[in-house]
Amino acid sequence: MADTDDTSAARVKARLPRGFADRGPAEIAATERMLAAIRDTFELYGFEAVETPFVEYTEALGKFLPDQDRPNEGVFSFQDDDDQWLSLRYDLTAPLARSVAERFDSLPKPYRSYRCGWVFRNEKPGPGRFRQFMQFDADTVGAPSVAADAEAAMLMADTLEKVGIPRGQYVVKVNNRKVLDGVLEAIGLAGDENAGKRLIVLRAIDKLDKVGPEGVRDLLGPGRMDPSGDFTKGAGLSADAIARVLAFTDAKRDDAAGTLSALAEVVGGSARGVEGVSELDQISVLIRAGGYDDGRVVIDPSVVRGLEYYTGPVYEAELTFEVKDEDGKPVRFGSVAGGGRYDGLVARFRGEPVPATGFSIGVSRLLAALTVLGKIEDKAGLGPVVVLVMDRDQIAHYQGLVAQLRRAGIRSELYLGGAGMKPQMKYADRRGSNCVVIQGSNEREKGAVQVKDLVLGAKLSGAPDRETYLAMQAEAQFEVPEAELVEAVRKVLARHAG
Amino acid sequence: MADTDDTSAARVKARLPRGFADRGPAEIAATERMLAAIRDTFELYGFEAVETPFVEYTEALGKFLPDQDRPNEGVFSFQDDDDQWLSLRYDLTAPLARSVAERFDSLPKPYRSYRCGWVFRNEKPGPGRFRQFMQFDADTVGAPSVAADAEAAMLMADTLEKVGIPRGQYVVKVNNRKVLDGVLEAIGLAGDENAGKRLIVLRAIDKLDKVGPEGVRDLLGPGRMDPSGDFTKGAGLSADAIARVLAFTDAKRDDAAGTLSALAEVVGGSARGVEGVSELDQISVLIRAGGYDDGRVVIDPSVVRGLEYYTGPVYEAELTFEVKDEDGKPVRFGSVAGGGRYDGLVARFRGEPVPATGFSIGVSRLLAALTVLGKIEDKAGLGPVVVLVMDRDQIAHYQGLVAQLRRAGIRSELYLGGAGMKPQMKYADRRGSNCVVIQGSNEREKGAVQVKDLVLGAKLSGAPDRETYLAMQAEAQFEVPEAELVEAVRKVLARHAG
Repeated sequence: MADTDDTSAARVKARLPRGFADRGPAEIAATERMLAAIRDTFELYGFEAVETPFVEYTEALGKFLPDQDRPNEGVFSFQDDDDQWLSLRYDLTAPLARSVAERFDSLPKPYRSYRCGWVFRNEKPGPGRFRQFMQFDADTVGAPSVAADAEAAMLMADTLEKVGIPRGQYVVKVNNRKVLDGVLEAIGLAGDENAGKRLIVLRAIDKLDKVGPEGVRDLLGPGRMDPSGDFTKGAGLSADAIARVLAFTDAKRDDAAGTLSALAEVVGGSARGVEGVSELDQISVLIRAGGYDDGRVVIDPSVVRGLEYYTGPVYEAELTFEVKDEDGKPVRFGSVAGGGRYDGLVARFRGEPVPATGFSIGVSRLLAALTVLGKIEDKAGLGPVVVLVMDRDQIAHYQGLVAQLRRAGIRSELYLGGAGMKPQMKYADRRGSNCVVIQGSNEREKGAVQVKDLVLGAKLSGAPDRETYLAMQAEAQFEVPEAELVEAVRKVLARHAG
Repeated sequence: MADTDDTSAARVKARLPRGFADRGPAEIAATERMLAAIRDTFELYGFEAVETPFVEYTEALGKFLPDQDRPNEGVFSFQDDDDQWLSLRYDLTAPLARSVAERFDSLPKPYRSYRCGWVFRNEKPGPGRFRQFMQFDADTVGAPSVAADAEAAMLMADTLEKVGIPRGQYVVKVNNRKVLDGVLEAIGLAGDENAGKRLIVLRAIDKLDKVGPEGVRDLLGPGRMDPSGDFTKGAGLSADAIARVLAFTDAKRDDAAGTLSALAEVVGGSARGVEGVSELDQISVLIRAGGYDDGRVVIDPSVVRGLEYYTGPVYEAELTFEVKDEDGKPVRFGSVAGGGRYDGLVARFRGEPVPATGFSIGVSRLLAALTVLGKIEDKAGLGPVVVLVMDRDQIAHYQGLVAQLRRAGIRSELYLGGAGMKPQMKYADRRGSNCVVIQGSNEREKGAVQVKDLVLGAKLSGAPDRETYLAMQAEAQFEVPEAELVEAVRKVLARHAG
């Protein structure tokens, strides 16, 4: 009576919206292993787990996304039945700020927490660019000291090594928005009336690794035409101003002391700039004290981060090894994690300044990097033992054999498809099984089963002579009493373990 | 220059939409442990992980939710920039059907898969009823045999025991929609013109555990007024028809054979009903062969499941122990998992029948049950060792001590809050620390640190005499050279391990 067959007329297309994807067992397993390594490192640093839901009031999330070039500004939004606007979270920082503000008085402070979860961007998807992706964040709220920022940078380094990025293949770059603010002040871009222009400068610098210094120069000046012909309007700065901004992004020297003096020079007399340089100095001392000044964590003014809400130190983890781009040209793998200080985000709710700093790891990107480095085991988990169905009217008996194996903790299955030996063996092969169990009427009458070793069986044809062949064959398939099934299957599985 | 302080005027309220909640460390850890146990059991049965995204085309998900009493029918939906409608998934079954249909030709069949994830319902939230909740599903696609349904029922039982529900405290009930179809046919409700009425009958029976047989009788007849005064229109069946439906739901006897004969009677001559009873008979044989006929899995016609898309066997796991309801009256804990055969769902996409069966575990509900049973360890993870900051200008040196502990794999923190001994000790207490490290100028000059055992320290006041007190005190706080810091901290932590 239920409608199982009358749907063929009006078939629904099996498809996903652009920018969304299914995940298979190998990807899920590799991700889980990586997440466990990240979690262990965050726990080692004293951070504790806390999670927020996927849906928030649109107003609570605020509008902090870069490149808001689409009508609903990068966020998936919808109205609740009371007409209030809700949004899918676009990162894990804005919801954390809401959550911390809500529970502020009951939290131990400073409050170190971490969370992993999917976030959503209503953006144009592209190759490797999804509208749903996973981030793993760590944040410290209530610590005004730059020691919290230095800790975050060192935590990034430890985390990358823990997941398998070798030392020397990555660098954590630290900069400070206050220094940039100082530079902007020095070129006359202070004040509320220049907020829009400051944002254009910020976004221009953030594109440094994509468009290079010449591209940034164009974006700071008249604007830039990209290879596809799209024109991005520039900040319209004077040549002197542009030179000063580029001097800032290019202020990195061989050692931290050199970089800091170069920065002190470009911020000139700006009080905020001087404060920023002094903070970087303190961070640099802490990095040295932790022993991370061996190239793992460096002061590098080329990093500014694209998000508007950062107010002080910003930091980014970059992988320095090279991969080939679409044209086969070697490029650096680039950024896999980033963050900074966002003292204003919790304040949006509290009405009082609440210092906070933290970072996000781009989970998919980091996994892609580990794959490139060959650090992801490609082998799927062990395939199940398959108990074949030789006589369909004996299926309950076969079910009993499977139950016996499962009780013994052996991953196993009853074949549930159509009849015939061939499809069953093909199925076992596709499932990566090392072992199948066969019981025809002959064996059943004797209360016995055949245990077949598929790995050994596949090697039979390579036997050098008949004698070896027969010896191998005897090992590759043998009969045991039903009562010894578990033992026999264990023997076969042990041959190919590890 | 960044706006950190001028937000107090227009403060945003820190709040979540109704029906959404944050999760803290204890809940996250308990859930993770339970999910791992579920995953292990599903893997043991040969199922493999596959996940789908949170967003699907609204059309692909279909409309199968019960109680669609709200304008957008229980689902959160929004339009893409090309005007196509997208929805957040409301369960994990509809997306699996889409995913399987999309990859059908490349899958090994039968295809056993599992997935865990959050789903969303745009419903009226209430106590314990959320608009975002987690499900853990297992499904077998491509197996027409009821052996797949029997396996699902046994898997449910094994999973409940693996997570910690003792045998005897739960029962997996199996029924068959075809039997219900047979009953409906027998009372003249066959045919497309009665589809709406059949659905009302289905929903009425599904409320059996909530409203009891008398409530179902009203819902099958004129309708029912609930205690709050809300009236639900009934199916308007005749007294004879109602008696027949209730005879069906009440057909459970002491043994499977008795139940099956009672069912054979109520379906009368309906071919579909007879087919349903025969399938239940086969399932009952398989359950016995697996050894699950000891009360773990039973044939019970009172279970029909509320979702419209089931086409054959349905099964539900119920916890049978009692808890107190809001009025302090003892009630059974009830359903924690359920599912059934949905041969039509993949067919919606393929235009050919594709057999499929599977179930969902309600993760939050199961966790609540384990909590009631006292199976959830309430203890949070081990608190971190806290290195106190005695002189702020020595923070880099303290940072070095923390780095030393972390390198040794000891969970530890540098205190990053305001100055003063008291707030630091209070912080360590709130973090559940067993051990703090203190270095004032005296110790620093000697190159030493004080290691303080907070657990032992708390017991000092209970010392029976001065001699014991002094001995305890010497253990509770002692000085070691910096080089022996790790060893000393390990000694203190070992005292209170386990």
